[in-house]
Amino acid sequence: MESPNGLVCFTNCLLPLEDGSLVEQDLWIDERRGVILDAQRTFFLRRDRPARVIDLKGNILSPGYLDIQINGAYGFDFSVFDGDHEAYRQGLKNVAEKIVETGVTSLVPTIITQEKSLYPTLLHLLRPYSSPSSATMLGWHAEGPFIQMAKRGAHAPEFLLKAEEGLTSFEKVYGAENLAVQEDWLMACDPNSDSVGVRIVTAAPEIAGVRPAMEEAVKRGVVFSIGHSIASTDIATAAVVGGARLITHLFNAMPQLHHRDPSIIGMLGASPHLAQLPTPFYELIVDGIHSHPNSVRLAYTAYPEGCILITDAMKILDPNLKDGTHEWRDGKRFIKEGDKLYLEGTDTLAGSVVTLDKCVRNFTRFTGCSLGEAIKCATYNPARCLGIEDKKGTLRAGADADLIVLDRKGYVQSTWVKGRQVWTRPHTPLALKQ
Amino acid sequence: MESPNGLVCFTNCLLPLEDGSLVEQDLWIDERRGVILDAQRTFFLRRDRPARVIDLKGNILSPGYLDIQINGAYGFDFSVFDGDHEAYRQGLKNVAEKIVETGVTSLVPTIITQEKSLYPTLLHLLRPYSSPSSATMLGWHAEGPFIQMAKRGAHAPEFLLKAEEGLTSFEKVYGAENLAVQEDWLMACDPNSDSVGVRIVTAAPEIAGVRPAMEEAVKRGVVFSIGHSIASTDIATAAVVGGARLITHLFNAMPQLHHRDPSIIGMLGASPHLAQLPTPFYELIVDGIHSHPNSVRLAYTAYPEGCILITDAMKILDPNLKDGTHEWRDGKRFIKEGDKLYLEGTDTLAGSVVTLDKCVRNFTRFTGCSLGEAIKCATYNPARCLGIEDKKGTLRAGADADLIVLDRKGYVQSTWVKGRQVWTRPHTPLALKQ
Repeated sequence: MESPNGLVCFTNCLLPLEDGSLVEQDLWIDERRGVILDAQRTFFLRRDRPARVIDLKGNILSPGYLDIQINGAYGFDFSVFDGDHEAYRQGLKNVAEKIVETGVTSLVPTIITQEKSLYPTLLHLLRPYSSPSSATMLGWHAEGPFIQMAKRGAHAPEFLLKAEEGLTSFEKVYGAENLAVQEDWLMACDPNSDSVGVRIVTAAPEIAGVRPAMEEAVKRGVVFSIGHSIASTDIATAAVVGGARLITHLFNAMPQLHHRDPSIIGMLGASPHLAQLPTPFYELIVDGIHSHPNSVRLAYTAYPEGCILITDAMKILDPNLKDGTHEWRDGKRFIKEGDKLYLEGTDTLAGSVVTLDKCVRNFTRFTGCSLGEAIKCATYNPARCLGIEDKKGTLRAGADADLIVLDRKGYVQSTWVKGRQVWTRPHTPLALKQ
Repeated sequence: MESPNGLVCFTNCLLPLEDGSLVEQDLWIDERRGVILDAQRTFFLRRDRPARVIDLKGNILSPGYLDIQINGAYGFDFSVFDGDHEAYRQGLKNVAEKIVETGVTSLVPTIITQEKSLYPTLLHLLRPYSSPSSATMLGWHAEGPFIQMAKRGAHAPEFLLKAEEGLTSFEKVYGAENLAVQEDWLMACDPNSDSVGVRIVTAAPEIAGVRPAMEEAVKRGVVFSIGHSIASTDIATAAVVGGARLITHLFNAMPQLHHRDPSIIGMLGASPHLAQLPTPFYELIVDGIHSHPNSVRLAYTAYPEGCILITDAMKILDPNLKDGTHEWRDGKRFIKEGDKLYLEGTDTLAGSVVTLDKCVRNFTRFTGCSLGEAIKCATYNPARCLGIEDKKGTLRAGADADLIVLDRKGYVQSTWVKGRQVWTRPHTPLALKQ
């Protein structure tokens, strides 16, 4: 049902603010333009009130979640390309359409270490993409190949690389055009545009050439994320000085916190008095498997403003998937046991099968934070990390009206993309379609 | 100079409050009784104003520091007894008299693992003790012998014990009379009294019999501190459920933080939502050697209210001691290099040589906290851990007037015990003796 004047007012709801609080307040959107409005300003300009009012019956109206590290879902693996461009695009589209049921309205598809020649094709396919009925693909996150052998996790050892020529090595692998300076790519979402799609590169700063390369790439808007690394405190600090802005799946694929050389994890404890540099954002997989709740809470208390919840999901992510053996790629297979996911024949954790909305709910229990504070870690914080907090992950006037309705326990009731409802919980008692 | 009516008013000073703030406020004491007064109440009762007013010229007037883990100082080692009771008492007295220059007005002498037969004598000598001109000995901290071989640090392996008979094992080692239930020992400080002196026992909860023993001891007022241990998260949690209230020199002599089993360190991250148990206090040696500043700050942000600064000092603690080789005991020797202290011929850290006032100053730099917040970690927090915050470590009316004057950078200018000045910085520009 459309609003005759295009204005929609959500009422009787709690809005999560950027400080982590939840306040009772209406939200106005323009469903034709698909953006959030400043209610007061709109009323004075248009002398018009919303023709459609939606009573959310006390539920929460949150910005849609952003997942900045996700390897695949619903049977599709972003890292697998069999030569069929159309099939790959269809796989992406399918993920974008289905994942909205988990509250995710924007994602950064992540590819793990590939055979070098695959990157230019894959990254071209992973340019930003949006449709009116699906989550937005924000561009790509390349996890590897410039990572540490000793902390490779499930990455293929034979494809890991050094960056001895600095940025040139990066350009040779990812393709120069994929790392080009381009002012307007940030929110470009037309799949036919020439927009560059790089968002995040995960690399190990101790690998030869990585730091100088990333310092250049950072100037072009790339988020340098430290991960799959054994960096000492000194090297990790130098990386942050050089612009590293994020830590990839904190705790996993990095040294344990040693008190005399706390390494990458210790960067969360760097005193602003001593270090005079920003504390990096950090990703947490809050599935109750990758990290013990006590570890999660230690990190969060150290720097709540930097906490970003991710799924790190594999292609078998699907809320309804059964336990057992599932195919992965290169003839390898997963074992799924509840929320646990292993490479067959090993005890190596290989991503998770937990949806982001469940991570948000886990996070409130693990840390004791409020639901509003947990929501912030899946909305505002990742948006700030990417520098797109005017468009995504907030309820600011002018931002895209990507919205989710959550009950007071954090279960997704309905999902909206650019002002249009794209999913609603089956048999929900809540009458959302007045 | 005495006050004719016994009342002294400190004015033009900042007082550290229990919330970590510093406020401009006068403090009244009764120098005859040696206690802090409620100024308003005193005026209404006695209709009298202080006959002596001391202008602190904008300096900080703090409760004296408490050091709850200190192995010796000024050439005296609490763990060494050569059979001469009088010489031992003289050594204690000498430490108590000299240490006030470091801002410490109360301490808990700590003995490391001993040959079993020595405990009854040593612990008897370490009963609480105070004099009008020195720091107060609050009773003893026994670090060992019920600790983990694999994390023994500088403790003698041949003296480590299991506690297979539970509390009986403890009584056989420490002496039953030293663990007796005694209501009045808490603030008893007469060296000739029969008061029991036990304050803290550091033990490893995974050692057979330790947990049941400590659960009984805790009921008698003993502080159970987890240390020199490889306890898993489950065992550490069980210890806290059983009453463990403190973690001995956090980070040192325990497992590193592993994200999937964060062990003892992870207890600082236990969510009150999940765990439903108090978070333990934890000791930090903030000498810049035992733990990296980033580690210190990670712990502090996780649970500021539980942070307790200690020196863990060895007998060579003396602000003026030179670098080089120094005798320890049993024919072993230390190497002192700046603030570092090793067992000769090893790279095993053996306590520190940093004074508590320097730890407080380091702590503000390492964490970025205010001086008031750092002071709290050496006053109110240790007092609360011992349950003596009505008497020591605070400026509450009725508390002992154990006070230190600090400049705005945390350097001790003068020290007062029970209302009398016992030390003043030589050639201080501050005219304290009006």
